[in-house]
Amino acid sequence: MEKILNAIQDDYPDDFAWCYGCGRLNKAGHHFRTCWDGDQTVTIYTPKQEEMALPGFVYGGVIASLIDCHGTGSAALALHRKNGHEPGEGAEPPRFVTASLHVDFMKPTLHGVPLKAVGTVHEIHPKKWKVEVEVFADGKTCAKGEVVGVVMPDSFLAGK
Amino acid sequence: MEKILNAIQDDYPDDFAWCYGCGRLNKAGHHFRTCWDGDQTVTIYTPKQEEMALPGFVYGGVIASLIDCHGTGSAALALHRKNGHEPGEGAEPPRFVTASLHVDFMKPTLHGVPLKAVGTVHEIHPKKWKVEVEVFADGKTCAKGEVVGVVMPDSFLAGK
Repeated sequence: MEKILNAIQDDYPDDFAWCYGCGRLNKAGHHFRTCWDGDQTVTIYTPKQEEMALPGFVYGGVIASLIDCHGTGSAALALHRKNGHEPGEGAEPPRFVTASLHVDFMKPTLHGVPLKAVGTVHEIHPKKWKVEVEVFADGKTCAKGEVVGVVMPDSFLAGK
Repeated sequence: MEKILNAIQDDYPDDFAWCYGCGRLNKAGHHFRTCWDGDQTVTIYTPKQEEMALPGFVYGGVIASLIDCHGTGSAALALHRKNGHEPGEGAEPPRFVTASLHVDFMKPTLHGVPLKAVGTVHEIHPKKWKVEVEVFADGKTCAKGEVVGVVMPDSFLAGK
């Protein structure tokens, strides 16, 4: 199984590390971790036993969650690189929130194997990025998605 | 707080009651329950403490999951009604799977209040239905979504 090295989420400051999907400090969460693979981005996740639609098939909400966090993580990787940084260097990365999420479920997704999300990132403008995502289970495409992420506005922190 | 009576999920046969989002038999799941409110459909869910994006704000993947299951549940309600049935009568409802899911996140969603998903269902053709969903937190729209659901194909059960 492939390993995710130098994930962008490893470099988020502690205040931003609580996301249920990708926060390393959220003990109950999924701990999605996203890294570069050449010019594409990768997140790998093996669904828990209970994360099913029916016995034997993965719950779509978990696939949507994987695509969502993979999208914001990929956008953060891309803007970080544009700013001259790579994860693991110690520079604090930008942090994105999801503006929109789209998922096309191509086929029922077999449970019990790692899911691999692969992303291609496009800059729309400096604070708005689009990530095309393909999710594979056992080498077969099970879902395709698109995430539009925007740099986290200050209002998010201010609780407004 | 409003209560969901006569949820469609209460009438699914046991074999189809394992969904992490809306399966009544999945102990670890969300237990989303969807009912009619006039010609619209409603699901109410209060996110768990750990289901956060940041402390104080709901995780987007949970909102996407809520919209997803609310969409398939709403489509099942609508086809069931078209077939002359209401939940709670004892007739076995149709079961839908998600073909596509779209979510626009309108604003950060405050944690600690019930989320209310309201759906409007449109028939595309007898086996394909579209549900427009609006999610409210504390009376304010926090997300809008669209789910296209299709009647569950036999191949899903056959594991293909």
